[in-house]
Amino acid sequence: MKPNSETKIIVLGGLGEVGKNMYCVMHENAIVIIDAGICFPEGGLLGIDYILPDFTFLKQNQDKIKALLITHGHEDHIGGIPFLLQSVNIPAIYAPNQAKELIALKLQDKNIRYDNLYAYTDETKLKFNKIEVEFFRTTHSIPDSHGISISTPDGCIVTTGDFKFDLTPIGPMADIHKMAELGKKGVDLLISDSTNALNEGMSVSESKVDNALNGIFEKYKTRRIIIATFASNIYRLKHIVETCYKHNRKICVFGRSMENNIEISLKGGYINHKDIIITPEEANDLKPGEVTILCTGSQGEPLAALSRIADGAHKQIKLRPDDIVVFSSSPIPGNALSIGRTINKLYLQGVKVFTNTSFSDIHTSGHANIEELKLMIRLLMPKYLMPFHGDYRMLKNHANIGIECGIPKENTFVLKNGDVLSLKNHVITLSSPIVANDIYVDGNRLGEINGAVLRDRKIMASDGILVVIANIDIKKRELLIKPNITTRGFILINENEAVIRKLESIAANAINEKLADPTSNFNDIKNQITSDLFSYVYETTGRKPIILPIILDVKRVHQ
Amino acid sequence: MKPNSETKIIVLGGLGEVGKNMYCVMHENAIVIIDAGICFPEGGLLGIDYILPDFTFLKQNQDKIKALLITHGHEDHIGGIPFLLQSVNIPAIYAPNQAKELIALKLQDKNIRYDNLYAYTDETKLKFNKIEVEFFRTTHSIPDSHGISISTPDGCIVTTGDFKFDLTPIGPMADIHKMAELGKKGVDLLISDSTNALNEGMSVSESKVDNALNGIFEKYKTRRIIIATFASNIYRLKHIVETCYKHNRKICVFGRSMENNIEISLKGGYINHKDIIITPEEANDLKPGEVTILCTGSQGEPLAALSRIADGAHKQIKLRPDDIVVFSSSPIPGNALSIGRTINKLYLQGVKVFTNTSFSDIHTSGHANIEELKLMIRLLMPKYLMPFHGDYRMLKNHANIGIECGIPKENTFVLKNGDVLSLKNHVITLSSPIVANDIYVDGNRLGEINGAVLRDRKIMASDGILVVIANIDIKKRELLIKPNITTRGFILINENEAVIRKLESIAANAINEKLADPTSNFNDIKNQITSDLFSYVYETTGRKPIILPIILDVKRVHQ
Repeated sequence: MKPNSETKIIVLGGLGEVGKNMYCVMHENAIVIIDAGICFPEGGLLGIDYILPDFTFLKQNQDKIKALLITHGHEDHIGGIPFLLQSVNIPAIYAPNQAKELIALKLQDKNIRYDNLYAYTDETKLKFNKIEVEFFRTTHSIPDSHGISISTPDGCIVTTGDFKFDLTPIGPMADIHKMAELGKKGVDLLISDSTNALNEGMSVSESKVDNALNGIFEKYKTRRIIIATFASNIYRLKHIVETCYKHNRKICVFGRSMENNIEISLKGGYINHKDIIITPEEANDLKPGEVTILCTGSQGEPLAALSRIADGAHKQIKLRPDDIVVFSSSPIPGNALSIGRTINKLYLQGVKVFTNTSFSDIHTSGHANIEELKLMIRLLMPKYLMPFHGDYRMLKNHANIGIECGIPKENTFVLKNGDVLSLKNHVITLSSPIVANDIYVDGNRLGEINGAVLRDRKIMASDGILVVIANIDIKKRELLIKPNITTRGFILINENEAVIRKLESIAANAINEKLADPTSNFNDIKNQITSDLFSYVYETTGRKPIILPIILDVKRVHQ
Repeated sequence: MKPNSETKIIVLGGLGEVGKNMYCVMHENAIVIIDAGICFPEGGLLGIDYILPDFTFLKQNQDKIKALLITHGHEDHIGGIPFLLQSVNIPAIYAPNQAKELIALKLQDKNIRYDNLYAYTDETKLKFNKIEVEFFRTTHSIPDSHGISISTPDGCIVTTGDFKFDLTPIGPMADIHKMAELGKKGVDLLISDSTNALNEGMSVSESKVDNALNGIFEKYKTRRIIIATFASNIYRLKHIVETCYKHNRKICVFGRSMENNIEISLKGGYINHKDIIITPEEANDLKPGEVTILCTGSQGEPLAALSRIADGAHKQIKLRPDDIVVFSSSPIPGNALSIGRTINKLYLQGVKVFTNTSFSDIHTSGHANIEELKLMIRLLMPKYLMPFHGDYRMLKNHANIGIECGIPKENTFVLKNGDVLSLKNHVITLSSPIVANDIYVDGNRLGEINGAVLRDRKIMASDGILVVIANIDIKKRELLIKPNITTRGFILINENEAVIRKLESIAANAINEKLADPTSNFNDIKNQITSDLFSYVYETTGRKPIILPIILDVKRVHQ
């Protein structure tokens, strides 16, 4: 190892939040990026469709980037790829099979051509200058999830990706032996999933969910069953398909992401029984007890299949009062209200609804509870721990779990986005942070949303806008006609004429005052209008609308 | 009883929602109103502060109104009173003691003078023409909650108000004997609380909460304990105060509604030990283990005491790393995110946090679970059941619970706001509904918010506004200068000059086209601008901002 050799771990997203996971490891002239996620804004307001990590650091270090490594195919790990490829040159992307298929589909959807997308397996070993990478299979709510071991001359970093331990999984077992070997060889830094670091004990096995769903099928043999779940939870889909097969039911699939995932899973061999998947037309000829509908919408998303079914707005599916609806999911925080609305509509149609609060074990999380986090730490025996993928309280609790497992307190790093760790000769210290803001994106065609635009939207959302138009002759320093006030989202003009007249006269006074002062220019006039109107409006209504003065000179417009 | 005698039950609010409870009973020329609540908008956006029931029916029947009867002092039952008194003449309000104090305080705050506010007790009997009213004590999360029995020549209506059964309560027992007597005498319609109609079994007793809190005090004898709970839950406050007394702790109270409720409770004798309540200054001289802080903010409300403490923005309280924070509450749906934010901030400060998910029985609901709903039905033995106070799914489940207890299905009424029941000679049928909209209110000084204003706010919140100013000479039919475009919340003008120029030229074309047609007027010009700009903007950006064309003639402004 050279003297002054250093490896940096730079976090672009995923700390203090569940979403937009992205971090990178840099050694000399090589950068390896891990994951490129997006997250969705709380409440979905202000026209924001996605939040992206900040790519500034990557743009600035463009020439060093060797590869993007993907742990698994969830949106909070792969959703940022199309945006990343449009602004940074990524020489290669390595992803496990299921994720690779989802990424390919995503790029195809957006008409992005990219020829360097490769699949890796547990056997794959990669080398980027002095950075050596290998992978180990984990269990999560999507197949092919992997942890990554990244070795540099300064030490070894292991990142778990999203994981849980399921000792009776529906898919293959996690490779605990490889984890044990990595631990034996020596792990300096463990970056580990903190999502469920507040949950005691061990998470429920997917096999238990299988039993619970099977119980519902046993009980309601003659009724149509509609199941909403996370489309990417392929093992869940797998056992739903197998349960249907066992109970002689055919399956109709609704919702774009569900259709995509079923297709990928059939192609990849994760799911068999292709023949029991039928079209809505074929379903019409069957009895209710012979049909299962598998659909999106478990979070009450307004445009998803289940929401449209509940609204009576779905073209192909009309609810019947003896339908059974199963939410094989848990509410993501912030979605409780939209899920509640969907459930109310389902009740209105008279159907029976099962949720994971009304009926136990019809869903389990894909993330490790406290005892599983301890097991990961015990297997890998890291010198340092950086809790990742969670709110501050989850990260903090995860650090405490590490301390309970013998990691010295000063070796646990509860960080925030933009923080940088420096690894030198197996010793880690906190280095100077980089800028890692939230980047707001309009998913339509506008791209990144400027902060000022968002600020305006927020003000107008609660207080509206007041537009003042004044026509003046600046040479004669004369107001030509009475200023005109119009407004949207503030008060109704025709119900508040007196207020509007008062605002017009305040604006006129402001303009005349400034016109009388020969040193004042257009900006002075505008500032005076804004300030006088603002004071009056705030005092009389308690509201702070945007005030937008527009001054027209005979031949020019001054905003 | 006269032939054609009829009693109507008219629901103004409280169905299909948890909030703004209000309904009335009308017999001949007498109307008795029960409760007058408000609710708070989900997410708190668009400048809406409260949602009120629609008072239109009451305004139209002003002369018949005899009294407003209040079941208990929660905001969703009394919050609408100041607004109601401002638009309808209410001859008298009868409320139980605690509610009466809260109403008086509320009216005083709003400078409303009202001299006809009276307290009732379990003994009180009232008569309004042929409507006879009496009250029975129930248990709820605020003292002095009552159910009401309303007898008319057509039959007897009993409304539970909000209730639970707690067989080891902190306050007095519910009057189950009076309920049994009412049942024996004959109840035609039961209007009953459905909030927890989806929850199995019986709710946890308040005494268990007492034990759980006591356990925390036992364990952390040397540390300062901060407890956030619902300010109106006086029995909770009572046992917190008593637990403090037992453990030799003094109490500091923060948050306006908490201070008000403590004051009312001391005055009303609900709480003793006035001497252990101290000022923040006095607390400074004590050790952490000698102090408890009792505060508002259990729902993460941004301006409440606990949120300000967590933010480090509270003037008098600074967190210490060994503080204990207890959320003696459960999250109201929609508040999960704001509570999560507060908890994260508390973790950031290093304090230990207990919530009712991390630690059992530090909170219990004030509403009846399924077995308690059954007990109420069994005691009162009603002929008809109208589930009240809940989402559709809660009402529906409550109706099913009624059916399980022997009420014929056709005698259960799952209704919506505005629905009217007609009671004639002990037989109930559904009558024609009245209008009962949600009334949105700006709590500052603007009053009711018009639907059009809200619609504009909603559009501007996600897509912004485009203002087009055109200066024309209508006589010469000539565009004087190039139209000017300005925008807020859509795109940033100085980063999108090409787009703005294009929009200006589209507007110019639209204007010139219409000016060339001698039959077209100002409105035609404005419509053309709006329609052409809208098409272009939507096609190129997928967004639908408000388009506001303003046309100035030499001497006039045309909006």
